[in-house]
This record gives sequence, structure tokens and C-alpha cells, in this order.
Amino acid sequence: MKPFIHSDFLLETPAARRLFHEVAASAPIIDYHSHLPPEDIATNRRFDNLFDMWLAGDHYKWRAMRALGTPERLCTGDADPYEKFLAWARALPRTLRNPLYHWSHLELKRYFDIDELLDETTAPAIWERANARLADDDFTVHALLSKFQVEVLCTTDDPIDDLRWHREIAGSECPTQVFPTFRPDKVMKTEDPAAFNQYLDQLAAAADVDIGSLDGVLTALKRRHDGFHEVGCRLSDHGLTRCFPADTRDGEARRIFDALRAGNPVSIEDQEAFAGYMMVHFGRWDAEKGWTKQLHLGALRNTRTRLFQSLGPDIGCDSLHDGPQAEALARYIDRLDQDGQAPKMIVYNVNPADNYVLATTVANFNDGAIAGKMQFGSGWWHLDQEEGMRWQLNALSAVSALSTFVGMLTDSRSFLSFCRHEYFRRILCDVVGSDIERGAIPDVPEMVDGLVRDICYENAKQYFNFPEVS
Amino acid sequence: MKPFIHSDFLLETPAARRLFHEVAASAPIIDYHSHLPPEDIATNRRFDNLFDMWLAGDHYKWRAMRALGTPERLCTGDADPYEKFLAWARALPRTLRNPLYHWSHLELKRYFDIDELLDETTAPAIWERANARLADDDFTVHALLSKFQVEVLCTTDDPIDDLRWHREIAGSECPTQVFPTFRPDKVMKTEDPAAFNQYLDQLAAAADVDIGSLDGVLTALKRRHDGFHEVGCRLSDHGLTRCFPADTRDGEARRIFDALRAGNPVSIEDQEAFAGYMMVHFGRWDAEKGWTKQLHLGALRNTRTRLFQSLGPDIGCDSLHDGPQAEALARYIDRLDQDGQAPKMIVYNVNPADNYVLATTVANFNDGAIAGKMQFGSGWWHLDQEEGMRWQLNALSAVSALSTFVGMLTDSRSFLSFCRHEYFRRILCDVVGSDIERGAIPDVPEMVDGLVRDICYENAKQYFNFPEVS
Amino acid sequence: MKPFIHSDFLLETPAARRLFHEVAASAPIIDYHSHLPPEDIATNRRFDNLFDMWLAGDHYKWRAMRALGTPERLCTGDADPYEKFLAWARALPRTLRNPLYHWSHLELKRYFDIDELLDETTAPAIWERANARLADDDFTVHALLSKFQVEVLCTTDDPIDDLRWHREIAGSECPTQVFPTFRPDKVMKTEDPAAFNQYLDQLAAAADVDIGSLDGVLTALKRRHDGFHEVGCRLSDHGLTRCFPADTRDGEARRIFDALRAGNPVSIEDQEAFAGYMMVHFGRWDAEKGWTKQLHLGALRNTRTRLFQSLGPDIGCDSLHDGPQAEALARYIDRLDQDGQAPKMIVYNVNPADNYVLATTVANFNDGAIAGKMQFGSGWWHLDQEEGMRWQLNALSAVSALSTFVGMLTDSRSFLSFCRHEYFRRILCDVVGSDIERGAIPDVPEMVDGLVRDICYENAKQYFNFPEVS
Repeated sequence: MKPFIHSDFLLETPAARRLFHEVAASAPIIDYHSHLPPEDIATNRRFDNLFDMWLAGDHYKWRAMRALGTPERLCTGDADPYEKFLAWARALPRTLRNPLYHWSHLELKRYFDIDELLDETTAPAIWERANARLADDDFTVHALLSKFQVEVLCTTDDPIDDLRWHREIAGSECPTQVFPTFRPDKVMKTEDPAAFNQYLDQLAAAADVDIGSLDGVLTALKRRHDGFHEVGCRLSDHGLTRCFPADTRDGEARRIFDALRAGNPVSIEDQEAFAGYMMVHFGRWDAEKGWTKQLHLGALRNTRTRLFQSLGPDIGCDSLHDGPQAEALARYIDRLDQDGQAPKMIVYNVNPADNYVLATTVANFNDGAIAGKMQFGSGWWHLDQEEGMRWQLNALSAVSALSTFVGMLTDSRSFLSFCRHEYFRRILCDVVGSDIERGAIPDVPEMVDGLVRDICYENAKQYFNFPEVS
Repeated sequence: MKPFIHSDFLLETPAARRLFHEVAASAPIIDYHSHLPPEDIATNRRFDNLFDMWLAGDHYKWRAMRALGTPERLCTGDADPYEKFLAWARALPRTLRNPLYHWSHLELKRYFDIDELLDETTAPAIWERANARLADDDFTVHALLSKFQVEVLCTTDDPIDDLRWHREIAGSECPTQVFPTFRPDKVMKTEDPAAFNQYLDQLAAAADVDIGSLDGVLTALKRRHDGFHEVGCRLSDHGLTRCFPADTRDGEARRIFDALRAGNPVSIEDQEAFAGYMMVHFGRWDAEKGWTKQLHLGALRNTRTRLFQSLGPDIGCDSLHDGPQAEALARYIDRLDQDGQAPKMIVYNVNPADNYVLATTVANFNDGAIAGKMQFGSGWWHLDQEEGMRWQLNALSAVSALSTFVGMLTDSRSFLSFCRHEYFRRILCDVVGSDIERGAIPDVPEMVDGLVRDICYENAKQYFNFPEVS
Repeated sequence: MKPFIHSDFLLETPAARRLFHEVAASAPIIDYHSHLPPEDIATNRRFDNLFDMWLAGDHYKWRAMRALGTPERLCTGDADPYEKFLAWARALPRTLRNPLYHWSHLELKRYFDIDELLDETTAPAIWERANARLADDDFTVHALLSKFQVEVLCTTDDPIDDLRWHREIAGSECPTQVFPTFRPDKVMKTEDPAAFNQYLDQLAAAADVDIGSLDGVLTALKRRHDGFHEVGCRLSDHGLTRCFPADTRDGEARRIFDALRAGNPVSIEDQEAFAGYMMVHFGRWDAEKGWTKQLHLGALRNTRTRLFQSLGPDIGCDSLHDGPQAEALARYIDRLDQDGQAPKMIVYNVNPADNYVLATTVANFNDGAIAGKMQFGSGWWHLDQEEGMRWQLNALSAVSALSTFVGMLTDSRSFLSFCRHEYFRRILCDVVGSDIERGAIPDVPEMVDGLVRDICYENAKQYFNFPEVS
């Protein structure tokens, strides 16, 4: 019997198969958004066992395991690694039709050449076999980056980060260009003045700037923005439930900042006004330097208080916000565009009801200067799966220009995720191939191959304009 | 020519056909939510004619007939049964692609073995033939329950109901276990203090409790909750446009109740605060007894004033609410979960834009104790049809665990609706079968057959934990 | 190789092909909503070149070109027509999967019999060939209307329009009946009292009525409504982000009007209350005359301030509103229905998340008097494309009666758009044909052919009840 992950997995038509094998499969990877730890890359980490590499820290798996009745002890608790692996192996066959079922078997196949379906009975042998492979020389982080042709990889970093690991990587044998991403979320979290001021002190130290006033915090952040640029950063990123107001004046921002810096709490309106003020500045800096601003919109986080209090964020209790997005997003970009200071932008969406809303809103601001300047990003989080990807591709196609799309990113915390690019490319080729087979796209390889190649690699290469290797 | 309803109806692939015929078709039915009248079951009712059994009280049909230009007289009016049946027969061919077209022919086939398509020309003969069958011995309610292998059936009942019919059924030859469902909607309708107080008086009598205070109403409701449990009730149900606030304090609830009990109107905010307070108590009681709480979210009811005033509710003038659902639902469940008192829950959705919102929100609260504890329910009302069912199956699959799904329910007012389970099972098998054929699910019968069998029957059997037959 | 636009374009099944070729293809066109200039029809205009006929004024193309990095100069700027045409030809191959790719090649094929795919290399020859055809006798507006069997065509007109061109057309050899549509948007735009009063003065002159009071403006508008009716107008139209409040009382409207007429600004609440008041009157007048009211809901317009200030509206910077629609729409129709004054209505939607919301809301008000009285209109603007049309057809089918659908309209500013009816019909036949092939619709031609024929032509013919040719 054909293995589950075979060469034509998810490729339903001859055109899809030709496109994938001849065009998409061999393209290098530009993984322009991830949460991989730069230290692991700098130190060329090896993993002790399959648990460390595959299960530790994966909130998608915890969420599925809880739904399947697995006790917390075997998800985030104190059970030992092998016991947790066995619990996952028991759960996996019951995740059929969830993306985890595809992802997991694709990972076992591409990293460990394992064709067996993982379940309770195959678990012990798979554990042995994978762990044995992890001991091989070609299982360092650098070897994996090389194997998957990862040409560029971007991490996600706080402005207070000293970027030491990034500098070490740049001076190392690492086969991949690794750049930081400027993510200043903490300077916009002002509901707790004490925590905010503590953060400002760290920022003051990192930037070597006195932060006694609004000007001080802007100077400090701008200096870090410059510092990020120097080591190759070309993207910023923000996780927002929805966009903040974009019309906060200097005096208002100053008043709010002064209150906060004095340790006083401010109203929710003031918190949002201050965050919106900062976002306008961040947008201008990005535009000046030719960076790309990423917005991750629409998540409702940490909804389960009990688990949040015991385990913290990012443990699988996050869902979708369903309030309006359109006007706030349009006003934010328009505010920047009115001064000719709208940066390139990628807006990611997690609520499928908003696909057309966000895709049309950002496309209003394409200005003819840069092809695909305003991007509707690939399906994110709960939408980073087959149905979600097809919807994103269709929405982008219908209301804007698919041909300019910068394509896939892993958004991952695991070095086992690079085959997600393959997963995306198979779905992309299946979508385009299906259109060719039904006559909705002309069967002209010189045109269609270019479309696929551009989305897999060339568009990102050109759009982000990362520094050349020296 | 093959009849319209043939053995492979809606089963497009070999895998779908195998799954349906070998696995799904023979599973018994657990119809855990319906609006069937317990009296009809207790008295083992017979129906005089096809109109009584099929058309009286079906607001789906009235709605379609109005859209097709049928005068109200032939829908809800005083025309005679045969005239109304003829009007429906004229309308039916013009409902092509509406679920009514499938449902109606499936019902004619499974109950009366009629293969002809119903239209104006075939109507007289079908009327005769169906009415003749209705006179047969095997057309009592008990015979129908037996024919469709209805193992368990839940009705929907007010706390003031004395459950007399349920007790009679339990002591009878009825082949099906029939349980009530606790639906206390009226105690949360406080916009009319006079009607509210009249209801409280009925409740006081039913529970034999004095209701002079908030404690009184809680005591009375709790006593009825206990009483429902004694006759086998294991579910509660609530029809809400959206969830109410979950943070109402005792003192506030007491103040609002006292005003209402004194006959004074209260603000909409107070009405919602009071309802939210009750919902928290209901949630706790359900959790204590291991019941399952059902929430039907998102309907906008009685929108056509003229018809509501002349005919009342449930006559086919209800549509979709499109305001936010996520935060209120998350807060309600979280409020219970913080005290370890979140019951099993099924959330039903009627607005397709909310599928992912609701599916992800409830899944945040799976706690590993019970597989599939927090259910995203089967497509409801306007979504109880082929497209709606496929969307629900896909959303549930993508963001949670399809394998834990408790599956279909009829939500019906008619004894002709049991073949809706067959309709659902065909679509389920088509969805899963299609994934097998395209290689998205491994073709491993021992795994896939279990998935289908569990959703059709085993999950519900285990999840609801109904009392065993003594 | 088969040309891209071939006889079976988009028709994937034998049933779809049979339905299209035998039933849909030959039906005349009733284009009941467009933005074509009546002057061009009255003067039987010829076009100088392909740019004038195809590119001038098409904001869909500008939007796509901007997304593809085309400078504004080549979109709306001062480049010469051929240069702009070349820019479009360069852009077109990069619009793959956008409706523009299909529309453009369908237009080149049906109007100019051009099979080549337009790109930079084929552009010069296509420019020559199309321009040569434009010089032929059969390329007048009348000849094109005749060629495409346009039986009825409705333009969109302001109440102050004197309808001179419509009268000229009625007295001419024009092969098509051409009627105006009553679109009184400007009388509901009151944010700028000076502009509002200027408009009222024009209205007063057009209606020959003094507008010193609320009664005056109602009298003037009613007189224009009557005047429109006399030349055959049978539809009104309104572009609304969402419906206005429907409960404004006479006294309140009077107060707001008096303030405005005195040149004073009013609050946004008052602006909306006044607009809502007018909408109730417009609804009554439409009902009295048997007109059909069109509502275009959900657009968020002119979001890019810089381009709006330099170029004005309708230049491709419009996207989707995502706030609630259901309650305001239900209340508006209900307000009219309570007095038995709800007109026939078509509600068009641009946000796909609202398809089921709007389809169910309007269907609540079908009253059995007219088949399909309350229409959920064909996919509009960003939804006027293959995916959008399929969604609209499916939503309408699932929650109301597809068989009553009045079908396609061009909503176009170009005489090259009549083949959009063909595009819609192919998709309709593909949808219905696919259902036949999979057994979801019985393969009974006498029933299914009628469904298709009705949607393509007969329903519109009967529903709008345009004046007979004298």
C-alpha cells in the first residue's frame, strides 16, 4: 500500500502534480516570520529526544489532547517525556481531519523518513527510531536549515533584546541568513503601570537613553529600531485584537505617558489612544527604512483564567475575536498614507469571516510603487490549515492580485516545522492545478509556472529586500 | 430510471458508499434534542392524515411557500387539510436546492415507500397512498420509534411541567427511552413583570415552594432540576441571541428580583444581569449532576410584527443575529470554569460567519477530563442542511476534534423527521469518504470506521450517560 | 489548442453543458441595474478606440493595476490611451484568478472575436484589430444592444435629472427599452448643510416646487417619483453602508430639516434619523406604484483620503463594512410591512460573511402575494465573481427559494459588459448541472430547464412588470 505521505500527497490533478514537482518543490525557503529561538541557531543546538524537539511547547497539540480527554499532566504537566509522547501517540489517530494529523505525519516522514502512522502500537518503535536519528551528525539545527534550503529565517524579538545571538549567527557557519523582527508589543501594554515602568527601565538601559518623557521613549525605541536595522531586520510585527485609534495628538499622548510614568493607571480609552500613537510612529519608521509591517489581527487570548493563572499565555486557550476590523484598520493605514508614510504591510487574519474584509481593506492602499505592497497574509493560527489556506488564496485572488503574494511562513516555535512550506506549496499547486484542469486558468506553463514560482520564493525575495550576504 | 432517493443518494465516492452501508446505516438513533410532544408518545398517537403528520406546524414549509407566492390561507390559514397539501405539492418542485426538497422526498420514501416526485400531478395519488399507510398498525408513534431504532429521545420541557407524560412513557411498552430536557427560558424573560410574576406563581405551585425572594426562585428551580433528574433528564437547553453577562453579584440579583416581584419594570441592563445570574446557577447545577448544557445562539426571532401579532412565534419569520458572540460566551464558560463548575456543553450556531468563532471559543475549555467535553453542535435551523453540515464538520475538524463529536439530533416537531439522521450520516460519510479518496485521510478501515461509528452513535451513548433501562 | 474562451468555458459536467447551450444561452437580457449613460444610448454613440470603450472609468482595472505596481499615471493619470492600454496588457496576465482575467478575455472574444490571450506581446495587434472593428457599422451602441438581445436596460438617475435622454430613446429606433431608476442618495447626505441646500434648490427647480419645509421636499421628491414612473421607471436604488433607523417621527424630521434648511449642521444621529425618515417615505411610494426597491448594503467607500481628494469617488479604493446589518434591515422592512406598505425589494450584499444574514432577513418578509417578493440579490461588487456568485446561489437556495431569483444584472459603466450575463449563466448552469450529476437534483429536464430559464429571463420579466412597448 502507498504510504500516507507519498509524492503526490494532496495533489489531485495532473496539472497540480506537474506544478509541484517541476516548479514548487525545489524552491528555497524564505521563512520571514517565526518564533524560533535565536540561541538555538547560534549554538547549533541538538535535541535530546523527540519530545524536546516535537512536543515541548506545542500548544496546538495540548489543545487537541485536552479535547480528546488527555489529562493536563500529560500535556503541560510533570509526566516524563516518554509518557507524554505515548499520550500524544494515543491521541493522534483521533485528530483525523485536524491539521495536526497531516503536519505530524509530514514531519515524521521528512525529518525521520518514517512512513508508519503514529498510534499507540507504533509509538515505541517510532520513539526509538527518531531518537536514534537525532543522535546523527545531520540533526543539528544548522544541518536542518541546510537540508530544507532555508535561505532566510526571521525570528521575533523585543526591542530590549541585545541581538547578541543574531550577531553570533552572522559571524558563524550557519547556512541561513537569520534576522530579527522588531515586535514592540510590551510598550503598548499599559494596563499595569508598574509593569509598564519596569519595561521602560529595561528599554532605557537597552537603548542607553533616559526615559523621563514621551520624547525619551520615542528616542529609545527609534534607537533600537535603528539597531535592529543594522543587523538586517527588515520587518516589524504586532499582535493586535484590532487596530487602535490613529488620531492621537502629541499633547494627548504626552499627558497619558506622564500619568503612566508617574505610576498612575489610565483609562482603557487612554491606553488605546497611547498604543495608537505609538503605532503611527512605528509605521513611519518602517516606511522610512523600507521595512514591512506585519499585523496579526483578531485573536482573543488567554480566555481560560484558571489555566492562564497556572501556566501563563500560549498554552492553547486562545480563540477568535469577532468585532469589527474594517474601519480601524483603514484609518490606521490611511493616517500613514496621508503623509506618504505607509510602509509595506502584511495583514494576517485568524477569523475566516474577515477574509474579504481584510483583503479588500489593505488592497485599497496599494499605490502602484511596489507590486503587492499591501499583502493579505497567509492563513494564520486557526486558519493555518488546508481549508484556511484555500480560503485565503481564493479571497486574495478574487479581490486583489494573487500573483504578488509573498506566500508561506511557519510562525513556528519548532525546527520540525519547515515542511509546512511544502504543505502550503502542495495546496497552492492543487488550487492552481485544479483551475487549469477545469479551464479557469489557461494551460500556458510559461505563465502559470511563473505564478507558482513567484509565490513560493521570488516574490518574497524581491519584496523584503533582505541584506545581501557579504 | 433510478429513483431520486436511491441507496447511494449523496454518496459520491466508493469510500463514502462503503462507510455508509457498512457502518453508518445500521447504527441506532440517540435523538438527544427534539421538540416532540411527550403526550403523543405516551398515548401512542396515530395520525389521521398526511397533513396532520407532515404539514401542521412546520414553519420551514410555510416560509418556503410564502417565498413562492402561496397565500397565508394555504400556509397557516383556514383552508382544509387537502387544499393545503395540494398547495404544498405545487410549491415543492420550486424548492429545488432547498433542504425541503431533499427532506420531503426522503420522508415520503422512508415512511411511505413512495418513489414518485411530489408535484401537482402526483399529489392526489400520494395523498391517498400515504393516508392508507397511516391507517396501518405499524404507523403508531411506538411503531415508528421502533422502525427507526430510536434508542433514546429527549423532549424539551419547561421547569413547571409536571412530567406526567414522561412517567407514563417510562411505565409503558414504548420501545424508546424518553427523557425531558430542562429549558427554563421563561424565568429569564423579565421585560413584562406581570407575565414574569404569573410564571413565578406557576413555578411556585409546580415546585411547592414559596417564591417571595431570590432564594425562593432558586430553591424552586433547583427542586424542579432535581425532579427532572429523577425521571432521567440529563440535558438543559437555552435559546439565547447571545450570552448574558456572567458577573452579576448576589446583591444585584436580589435587588432586581425584588423590583420585578413587586411588579416594577427594570432596565434592559438589569434584565440581562438577572438572566446572566440565573445562567450561572443553571450551569453549576448541570455540572454537579453531570448534565450537558445546550446553548442555541444567534437567532433573531419574530422579526415580522404583523405576523407575530396574528400568529405568534415559530411561524417562519426568524433570521440571524449578526453581533459579536465570542467574548460573552468565553466569559460565561470561564466564570463557571474558574470554580471548576463548567458542565459539559453543546453550543449550536445559526450564523455561518460564527462557525469558527464558536468552535474555537468552546474548545478553549476542554479540560482533559471528558473526551469532547465542549461540543460545537451540528448545524442548526438555517444551517441544518447540506452546506451547513459540511461547514460545521469542517470547522470542528480544523480547530478541534471531530472524532469526539456527538453528532446529529432532529430538533424536530414531527415524527417524520427521524430520517434526518440518515441525511446527516450520508453527508458525514460523503465528507469522510471524499477525504479518503483524495488521500487526505489514510484508507485504514479500522480507524475510519471507528470515527464514523462514534459520531453516529457511540460518542452520544457515552457522552450523555443516560440512565440504563431498569 | 482549444481557445481559452471556448463554447464549454466553466461548464464542468454534461448536464451543465446541456443546460447552458439548450436553455440559458439564447435567453434575452433584462439588465435591470446599470450605470450606463443614457446620453450614449440616445446618441447611439460610437467609440473612438478600445481605451475609450474598455479602460476609461473602470475602477476594477485601476485597483488591480495599482496592486501590480502600475504607477497612477498609467491608471487614472495623463498618459495617452495607447500607453495606458499597454500598461493594462502588461498587468492582465498577472491578474490570474481575479475576475478581471475572465471578464477581459470574454469581452475580447464576444465583442471582437479575439482568441489570443492579451499580454504585452499580443497587445499591439489586439489594439489594431479591436479598433478596426470599432469603426464598423455594427459597433454603435444600438447595434451592440441588439447583438446581445438586451430587451430592457435600466440606468441609474438622480431625482433632479430631467430624463430628457430617456424620452429621446423612447422615441428612437433603439432596439432596447431603456428606463431610469430613482436613486435619491443626495437628499440623504446632510453632513454638509451648504451642499444639501444647493441640492434642494436644484430639486425644487426640477420639480417646480417650493422647498421651504419638510412637506416641500417630500412633495418635490414625490413629483419626481411620479415623473420617473411616467417614463417607465419601475425601480429605486439606494447605496447604504447599513440601514438607517426606521422610527423617526414627523416632528423630529421636521425639526432636523428646518435646522438644515437654515444652514445649520446637525448631529450624526440627526443625519441618520432624517435619512431613515426619507427611506420610509420612499418605501411607501415604491409600494404604491408596484416598484422594486434596491438596497446596496455594506460598502465602505473612499477609504484612501489622498486619492479621494485628488480623484474623487469610484476610483478603486472601496472595501467592506463589517458591522451588524440584521436588526436595522429587519426593522426598516418591518416598519413598512406593519402598514402593508413593504415594496418588492432586492438587497445586494458585498460582505460574504453577511450572505446568510441578509438572505434570511429579507425572506422573513415574503408575504405570499408575489413569488420571490423579497430578493437576495446577485453577488455585488467584490462579490460579483465566480466564488461570490456560487455563494449567493447557495445561500439563496439553502434559506429561501432559488427558483424565484430574478438573476443577473451588470451594474456596469461599460457597454462591453453585457457578456457578464453569459458569465453568470455559465456559473448558474454549472451549479445546477453539478447537482444533477451528483444526484442532488432529479434529472428531470422539464423541471430543471424551467428553473434555469426562469432565473435567466422569465422571473425578471414577470417580477419587474416593465411597461409594454406601445
